[in-house]
Amino acid sequence: MKLLRVGEAGQERPAALDARGRLVDLSGLVAEIDGGFLAGAGIQAARAAVAGGELPLVADTSLRIGAPIARPGKIVCVGLNYSDHAAETGAQLPAEPILFMKAPNTVVGPNDQVLIPRGSVKTDWEVELAVVIGRTARYVDSPAQAMACVAGYAVSNDLSEREFQLERGGQWDKGKSCETFNPLGPWLVTADEVPDPQQLGLRLTVNGHRRQDGHTRNMVFGVAEVVRYVSQFMVLEPGDVINTGTPAGVALGMPEPKPYLRAGDVIEVEIDGLGRQRQTVGAA
Amino acid sequence: MKLLRVGEAGQERPAALDARGRLVDLSGLVAEIDGGFLAGAGIQAARAAVAGGELPLVADTSLRIGAPIARPGKIVCVGLNYSDHAAETGAQLPAEPILFMKAPNTVVGPNDQVLIPRGSVKTDWEVELAVVIGRTARYVDSPAQAMACVAGYAVSNDLSEREFQLERGGQWDKGKSCETFNPLGPWLVTADEVPDPQQLGLRLTVNGHRRQDGHTRNMVFGVAEVVRYVSQFMVLEPGDVINTGTPAGVALGMPEPKPYLRAGDVIEVEIDGLGRQRQTVGAA
Repeated sequence: MKLLRVGEAGQERPAALDARGRLVDLSGLVAEIDGGFLAGAGIQAARAAVAGGELPLVADTSLRIGAPIARPGKIVCVGLNYSDHAAETGAQLPAEPILFMKAPNTVVGPNDQVLIPRGSVKTDWEVELAVVIGRTARYVDSPAQAMACVAGYAVSNDLSEREFQLERGGQWDKGKSCETFNPLGPWLVTADEVPDPQQLGLRLTVNGHRRQDGHTRNMVFGVAEVVRYVSQFMVLEPGDVINTGTPAGVALGMPEPKPYLRAGDVIEVEIDGLGRQRQTVGAA
Repeated sequence: MKLLRVGEAGQERPAALDARGRLVDLSGLVAEIDGGFLAGAGIQAARAAVAGGELPLVADTSLRIGAPIARPGKIVCVGLNYSDHAAETGAQLPAEPILFMKAPNTVVGPNDQVLIPRGSVKTDWEVELAVVIGRTARYVDSPAQAMACVAGYAVSNDLSEREFQLERGGQWDKGKSCETFNPLGPWLVTADEVPDPQQLGLRLTVNGHRRQDGHTRNMVFGVAEVVRYVSQFMVLEPGDVINTGTPAGVALGMPEPKPYLRAGDVIEVEIDGLGRQRQTVGAA
């Protein structure tokens, strides 16, 4: 099932795509697509209601699409998790996942405007497979147990300001948490529709130029291992998001002058089966 | 005013201490002490109601004390922000604040048990002044504007696993976000009761041994500058927490064998005017 949230920012209502691709209004069934919904019988109930044709369609198909889950409790990111991206940045392949965090209020809709922070000259893109947690993961000890904690997947653009990230003290969070820096969606695709998260192509263009064309088979640590690993260091809760790393092709990895984002640029982001994003770049 | 939340974990209700130190039940006035309460007229309304004697006292004075705000939207931490602590860890004084993050679900009550993570041998303490945000801070450009965004202050123990933080990839978040790693409270002391946050003594003992005995005048970057600075990189929202750094005296800074925490240890934490914490250490 594809779950989404439609409407103006802060006033989204829950919806789903039915088998014919029509937008079904879930607001009679559930108030919000969030951790509580994912942890309980929400997905199952929504699936049954959508299949049974019990719910009304959303009449206005021109509505803005929001992020597919209400604000996550936390966003954990994995650094240098694609062999091709580690190579382009001149970094060694990590012996274990590098973890950092992104402020949860960076999340915006998949087609919302992205803002270049004030003073920034190195704002960069990163297409990533986002894992959305559906069950509490604490000291998970097997890949199967880890995968049972995954509610589903979404497209994520893990925007990054490289000077803030790398040249302003060394802790990456400073360059990862700027306003609008995490377009998410359009959909939360439930795990049953993604039989193998390591078999997905990821692509990103800027102004129509293909910049990233990667594949999740090149992840250094796959989804199951990432969830298992993160759960050794913190408790993952329903509604939490993990950005699982980006493949090669970011501006940071390119020859000078690196083509960092500028106001007016258009970013398009896509993952097989998970939908497309399109952001216009503005200035904060 | 001193705001707090009392009751079992997950079922706390809002309360305040009145002028006579009695526990006043705020649950008839407000559902929760959170960002919404702090952003609106909540503090003002609570102060008036408490002063007017309109609200019932909490009958059961043996109730557990929870963290003084419901789960923060984010926890931003400042690293190496006391000159004496930077010196003890062998680090240079930072030219600008070092920022990292702690998962919001690390927050527990001030007297709750702290758990040593599985596999940890370097769990460390850190008394810190926590700043609680009451108004959105985005590109704040003056100290006065920064201080106007502060709702109040609380005692924080920014527990840290030093191997996870420093020896497992280099991004500090991994050692900062473990379960129970942020005892907060007992109170949120509103900003009007803390005329100068740079005039506070901070103390911490382990099993009765004084380990930290610092003073906020030794902060490299004071509260106003920290809030102003952070707001250049991310949007701070009501209910967010900033842990402003720890003074000298952590286990990491001591000679070998460093006295890292063990199950059974008792940590006591105190800041002038902001109250005391007492945690027993257990194992995850």
